[in-house]
Amino acid sequence: MDGELPEPLVIAGRSFTSRLIVGTGKYDSYAQNAAAAEAAGAEIVTVAVRRVNLTDKSQPMLVDYLSPERFTFLPNTAGCYTGEDAVRTLRLAREAGGWNLVKLEVLSDPKTLYPDMIETLRALDMLIADGFEVMVYCSDDPVMARRAEEAGAAAIMPLGAPIGSGLGIQNPVNIRLIIEQAKVPVLIDAGVGTASDAAIAMELGCDAVLLNTAIAEAGDPIRMARAMKHAVIAGREAYLAGRMQKRRYADPSSPLAGLI
Amino acid sequence: MDGELPEPLVIAGRSFTSRLIVGTGKYDSYAQNAAAAEAAGAEIVTVAVRRVNLTDKSQPMLVDYLSPERFTFLPNTAGCYTGEDAVRTLRLAREAGGWNLVKLEVLSDPKTLYPDMIETLRALDMLIADGFEVMVYCSDDPVMARRAEEAGAAAIMPLGAPIGSGLGIQNPVNIRLIIEQAKVPVLIDAGVGTASDAAIAMELGCDAVLLNTAIAEAGDPIRMARAMKHAVIAGREAYLAGRMQKRRYADPSSPLAGLI
Amino acid sequence: MDGELPEPLVIAGRSFTSRLIVGTGKYDSYAQNAAAAEAAGAEIVTVAVRRVNLTDKSQPMLVDYLSPERFTFLPNTAGCYTGEDAVRTLRLAREAGGWNLVKLEVLSDPKTLYPDMIETLRALDMLIADGFEVMVYCSDDPVMARRAEEAGAAAIMPLGAPIGSGLGIQNPVNIRLIIEQAKVPVLIDAGVGTASDAAIAMELGCDAVLLNTAIAEAGDPIRMARAMKHAVIAGREAYLAGRMQKRRYADPSSPLAGLI
Amino acid sequence: MDGELPEPLVIAGRSFTSRLIVGTGKYDSYAQNAAAAEAAGAEIVTVAVRRVNLTDKSQPMLVDYLSPERFTFLPNTAGCYTGEDAVRTLRLAREAGGWNLVKLEVLSDPKTLYPDMIETLRALDMLIADGFEVMVYCSDDPVMARRAEEAGAAAIMPLGAPIGSGLGIQNPVNIRLIIEQAKVPVLIDAGVGTASDAAIAMELGCDAVLLNTAIAEAGDPIRMARAMKHAVIAGREAYLAGRMQKRRYADPSSPLAGLI
Repeated sequence: MDGELPEPLVIAGRSFTSRLIVGTGKYDSYAQNAAAAEAAGAEIVTVAVRRVNLTDKSQPMLVDYLSPERFTFLPNTAGCYTGEDAVRTLRLAREAGGWNLVKLEVLSDPKTLYPDMIETLRALDMLIADGFEVMVYCSDDPVMARRAEEAGAAAIMPLGAPIGSGLGIQNPVNIRLIIEQAKVPVLIDAGVGTASDAAIAMELGCDAVLLNTAIAEAGDPIRMARAMKHAVIAGREAYLAGRMQKRRYADPSSPLAGLI
Repeated sequence: MDGELPEPLVIAGRSFTSRLIVGTGKYDSYAQNAAAAEAAGAEIVTVAVRRVNLTDKSQPMLVDYLSPERFTFLPNTAGCYTGEDAVRTLRLAREAGGWNLVKLEVLSDPKTLYPDMIETLRALDMLIADGFEVMVYCSDDPVMARRAEEAGAAAIMPLGAPIGSGLGIQNPVNIRLIIEQAKVPVLIDAGVGTASDAAIAMELGCDAVLLNTAIAEAGDPIRMARAMKHAVIAGREAYLAGRMQKRRYADPSSPLAGLI
Repeated sequence: MDGELPEPLVIAGRSFTSRLIVGTGKYDSYAQNAAAAEAAGAEIVTVAVRRVNLTDKSQPMLVDYLSPERFTFLPNTAGCYTGEDAVRTLRLAREAGGWNLVKLEVLSDPKTLYPDMIETLRALDMLIADGFEVMVYCSDDPVMARRAEEAGAAAIMPLGAPIGSGLGIQNPVNIRLIIEQAKVPVLIDAGVGTASDAAIAMELGCDAVLLNTAIAEAGDPIRMARAMKHAVIAGREAYLAGRMQKRRYADPSSPLAGLI
Repeated sequence: MDGELPEPLVIAGRSFTSRLIVGTGKYDSYAQNAAAAEAAGAEIVTVAVRRVNLTDKSQPMLVDYLSPERFTFLPNTAGCYTGEDAVRTLRLAREAGGWNLVKLEVLSDPKTLYPDMIETLRALDMLIADGFEVMVYCSDDPVMARRAEEAGAAAIMPLGAPIGSGLGIQNPVNIRLIIEQAKVPVLIDAGVGTASDAAIAMELGCDAVLLNTAIAEAGDPIRMARAMKHAVIAGREAYLAGRMQKRRYADPSSPLAGLI
């Protein structure tokens, strides 16, 4: 049917129809957050365990607005700068909600929020030994992505650009190299600023897109959530359809050939 | 409601919900052409009067597959290199189908298929004097776009890149300047190669997108038509939502500031 | 020999070694202007006839700092919005300095400073009838560039981006199409912001580069003039040398082929 | 004076006037290689220890064409895939030529020739313990670059694009982040395809550029070497001069602001 994407996204044995994962914790309210997740058609939401209220019943709780029955909660380690911090955070999350599928991010510094891949790989080993299924936020270095996959990552999540930058995918060559070598799903995580950025990620062959700021900080977050839903479907369909060949107009024997 | 675009596209007093116009005449068959137009959710189809069978009832006719009741037919002057040719072609179309809303293109040469803007403006004057409502294929020069609007164009249709090139929008600065000065609708016509190109056009503030080769020459035209439908909605919604601000990470006092 | 460019640039029968033309009238002083022209290695300077003192001997005069014996003065029509204005301005210049080789620009509006190509072509006819040799500032529309050449332009000078924007060449496809069809020299005029922009223009096959703001508004104009001198040589040499082929790393059968 | 770059490049206490390092081993002959190094104005040449004849006096030797008195030889570990291989190779080089300043590259795979940063950092520790001064080929991940510097690297050499690709700098954000955090020189190593690519690297604030294929595989290598010499000077001068601010022409309140 129109707009339906036939192949499910499968991560760690779980199937999803939607290929757009959205965040929590940057919205004006949990109500707005829930409305955005609905408008995005998301089935998975990431949860910054350190920032979102998961346990204090005297305060508004995320689960009151986004039902864990309806959305797969994906706890993440935003704000963790060491492997130990990340492992501790995810153990707490598992105790709180029983979540075993998690997103690991071990950051290097608060300015760029880039992952420290050496700490990340160390934490990944610990988490896998502890029975977690781990989706891994990583740099766009294909070598590090391959190491993460070899260590047992359930999905590879390279950044397209710095978290919260909205700059779009900076290095499509690297993203494409990661996709071509990966046997687990590859998701763009970080850097998407507007709808076309999400479409481009999917056209490159990514299996899904994770974004947060692009929706939360849009002028109208609900409308942007809807835009992103369509953008991900558009990019996925275009990828599967197979785009037309580009035609070049400069004389092929010119010094410009291959340039434009 | 989800995916609905509240404001209609209004061209020459006619309202449309869809903001994607597709072509005819490059498909394997009229049946495929019709299926693609359906999948694209198009309400307007351009018709190359010189290439499509509009009158010979002994042969398969476009109107048997794409009903003029359901689709607004937009006759165009593809293949015309002089103003006189273009005017003659559109008069024939009006006689054949009663179509008064037309798309004017006067080409300069068969290699680039770029419009000859001086001939185009001359033909535009003739057509308006003759009572046509004219959508004008034009270069992305804002000065020429303004002249076309001042001469009475019903819509401005700058090329994003050469017809059939699939190169995407080459000069977003010019497209944006055209949009900011125009009081009639601005449609990107030519250059879209894949879904993200269409999304980018809409994010720039275009009122609609016209494309042909990107669907007709895709590996799976029907699927690509669907991709384009979603891409146009995605770009429109993102434009209306208002994107997040980009954040820059380089030291703002560095020589790089403003570069990345 | 090192850094020497063997083939001269020939415009209207005059030969030049340097392929960098610089402006006048945006500097702190004529002295700085002269020092920048020297550092740039320029042999031609454009002179905004309406802005530069060419006749009032009671005030500092440009010719006292930039000798017309050493530099070819190229009067231009900056600030002219009609063909008649432009023609009148250049006649005054010819009377003042005997300059017959001129640069025509007829602007459309003060915001973009884009050329009005219809007025430009009209003025070009008048100037040629009046015996001038005319270098023509034009849009990057190859069709208009061809018309200017057919009307007798001594050189074609498409804008790379709006005057004074420093945005770099926006549409290399168009610039390259102009170069491939032209039999007279093609110079990028407007849009160069830094050294690499000038190099890119020359790598595309331009015969020369004209710039003004990029030097005058640099932090250190003299140093930037020197940068531009080297950039133009670098780009010219690279063009003549013939660059290596780009290598692509993505699987050539992937949907990405041709994208990165 | 014209073209002179006042500040020397200082690496591990050694001063150089030229900021362009060229390779060896991809040329038709050692004679051509030497002519290209001369034309490039290089003072340092990298030497692939495993590919260049440094010891067999019965065969043509590199040192007969490129004098170690005139050029600083920088042995590199091209072709090494483990830390041990790299260390062994550089020890052999030190025995052969007394070279203590070396370039470390530990590759991950023969397709991309990307560095394996974990092996690279391990080899770096071994080399520093062994008394080498080590310039490090690395990914453009600022976190890994910082780790290399903290481990004692004498210079950081991020790739701009895959070795031999000629694609130009893919991720200027990362390169700039590396430059802003580094206290040792940063050199672009790999990815430069033509002159403007080298200029762009220097405009970003790189201290120097290392390239090989762009010269060796150019149509006219000697001319391209000259182009690169000028491009590096141009980019360096432009960086030091401080470029003009870019001006944007779209309405600053438009959704496009910040886009173009």
